[in-house]
Amino acid sequence: MKFTVQKEYLVKAVQDVMKAVSSRTTIPILTGIKIVVTQEGMILTGSDSDISIESFIPSTLDDQHILEVQQTGSIVLNAKYFGEIVKKLPSDFVEIESDQNFVTKIKSGKTEFSLNGFDAEEFPLLPQIEEHETFRISADLLKFMIRQTVFAVSTSETRPILTGVNWKIENGDLTCIATDSHRLALREAKIEMDSMDNNFKVSVVIPGKSLNELSKILDDNDEKVEIVLTEHQALFKTKHILFFTRLLEGNYPDTTKLIPNECKTELTVDTKTLLQAIDRASLLARDGRNNVVHLETVDQSIVNISSYSPEIGKVVDEIICKELKGEELKISFSAKYVMDALKAIESPEIYIQFTGVMRPFLIRTANDTKTLQLILPVRTY
Amino acid sequence: MKFTVQKEYLVKAVQDVMKAVSSRTTIPILTGIKIVVTQEGMILTGSDSDISIESFIPSTLDDQHILEVQQTGSIVLNAKYFGEIVKKLPSDFVEIESDQNFVTKIKSGKTEFSLNGFDAEEFPLLPQIEEHETFRISADLLKFMIRQTVFAVSTSETRPILTGVNWKIENGDLTCIATDSHRLALREAKIEMDSMDNNFKVSVVIPGKSLNELSKILDDNDEKVEIVLTEHQALFKTKHILFFTRLLEGNYPDTTKLIPNECKTELTVDTKTLLQAIDRASLLARDGRNNVVHLETVDQSIVNISSYSPEIGKVVDEIICKELKGEELKISFSAKYVMDALKAIESPEIYIQFTGVMRPFLIRTANDTKTLQLILPVRTY
Repeated sequence: MKFTVQKEYLVKAVQDVMKAVSSRTTIPILTGIKIVVTQEGMILTGSDSDISIESFIPSTLDDQHILEVQQTGSIVLNAKYFGEIVKKLPSDFVEIESDQNFVTKIKSGKTEFSLNGFDAEEFPLLPQIEEHETFRISADLLKFMIRQTVFAVSTSETRPILTGVNWKIENGDLTCIATDSHRLALREAKIEMDSMDNNFKVSVVIPGKSLNELSKILDDNDEKVEIVLTEHQALFKTKHILFFTRLLEGNYPDTTKLIPNECKTELTVDTKTLLQAIDRASLLARDGRNNVVHLETVDQSIVNISSYSPEIGKVVDEIICKELKGEELKISFSAKYVMDALKAIESPEIYIQFTGVMRPFLIRTANDTKTLQLILPVRTY
Repeated sequence: MKFTVQKEYLVKAVQDVMKAVSSRTTIPILTGIKIVVTQEGMILTGSDSDISIESFIPSTLDDQHILEVQQTGSIVLNAKYFGEIVKKLPSDFVEIESDQNFVTKIKSGKTEFSLNGFDAEEFPLLPQIEEHETFRISADLLKFMIRQTVFAVSTSETRPILTGVNWKIENGDLTCIATDSHRLALREAKIEMDSMDNNFKVSVVIPGKSLNELSKILDDNDEKVEIVLTEHQALFKTKHILFFTRLLEGNYPDTTKLIPNECKTELTVDTKTLLQAIDRASLLARDGRNNVVHLETVDQSIVNISSYSPEIGKVVDEIICKELKGEELKISFSAKYVMDALKAIESPEIYIQFTGVMRPFLIRTANDTKTLQLILPVRTY
């Protein structure tokens, strides 16, 4: 194998596939990145037991020659060292050459590295995804949907299914739901389907960690991402990247019953004002159990956000609501959960629906049923 | 005590004095910041057993009224909470009021904090610095001198005196020296003395940690810093800040004998080229003992930088020197120590003097005797 490639493309591709490489794997070959070079281009692959990422560098891109292949072939190189090396090479071009003992020379400018590689034949094959229903969604919307839900997955392994995000397709809509049983985040959006079959239904659970890595790889543009969901795997395809993740096994709990459809107190408020008030109140609550702050309606348009620590002191913040309707209310909640939800909504103004002191409350934007954040209060009063 | 102050000045002053507050102190009152308010202004003080910092906010600055005192007084407030609170207050003005039980109200906009404070009488007094010889140096030069030496202090407590930087004044020159016994950094500069007494001599050892904190507080400008060195304390004065540090007890080793005055091989080279080559070579050396890389003269103007790891591979970088004179040489050294030294010198071109494989070598800029970096090689050949 021998070829020359433009450094910037190599650096980007290595960075992308590295996200699937775990340094703590027990299978030595998986600490490596597989490189396969053909006349068409260069394929880099990284994999752990959960995620596999394949990145393609074509020989020619937009009429520009970015890869010159002298001899086709393949090799596996240690991801950590190869990744750091390519970033620090001095010239804009990199020449890579492997011999039959898998020793690989990496030359750039006046620098010559020689790395001990492994036989590419030993690298595990990627999952085979059979022909299947595919759908499409733009990269920026996909990233947004991930950002609005994935933070709410459980970090505890006591109920492994809750460490993933439930993706449901029905009637041409994708709904993403995450819950750690103290809060729930939901986001819905229209998808583009290949077939006109509006009866296509599927429900899978994608590990939160995989979605976080996927989000880092996707660019923030409206390029379409093609998505295939099978029984055990999900595949996300962009122009030059394939991203595979295993799915979580098991039944995701039915969360529709959790969402209250009545409402006793409702308020509309500036998001930043509320966020900053809760942030300040949480300063004193942080060391206490659960980081609990309190919300109390004061008069027809004012709520107080407060917290109290016997050792440190107390804080009260007065917030003027844009609108405040319904019953009087005193309620306590985790500052972190509410701040996470307010940040995820990304709207200048938000609408909160309470249905009582011990009932979950809903945070959303006015007139939007596609985004929903639900939070369980904490019993203190 | 009752006063109103502009938030930005309070935030800056709290940030500065916080640098002297340790969260791990065993004396509860030292987790606090002392605040004393008079008609002239507000003094904030933070202290641990090594460093004390005092910051002054005057009532009027450049004809601008920044502090309005309704009632003079004093209080000690928990540094961690007070620091976070003032940063997050909503308005540009902060009203602070303490009652006789040391409960302190902090109001800003619609926010009201109430913190449990302590009696300011219990706060330890600052060290008393008797009348003494003072000298002056501009803040940016002082920061530069600290940056060029403090990284070379020892991090090990086996010889505590080496965790400090030796400051020597003689003939109107200040010399700063740091060594961890594997390398040495030296920087010399002219100072402005109060008296015309050129016979004034002093030698003290200032803890490296104190100099790092001092450096963070000083602005990067040519404002003069007034310095007083006594037997047990050093004091650094700027317009609104007093910075006290204890000195290290004991005799600093005589380092003049370490510096070779002959030279067998000398080279002049572009700093960035050498720095990047050593950085690349250290990639493979990092996991090995001591992070050792090798330098070898190849012909009349070329040196090779290389490293080798039996498991991972090897790397050779070829560097064209601007000048290379003297004996052939093969030498090994710690990549980290040489990179630290090259970064500290901050010059586009550097000059290295070798006096043999097992003798310390010198890194400096051509025609400059005021800055010197000395490094002990590692025996490998």
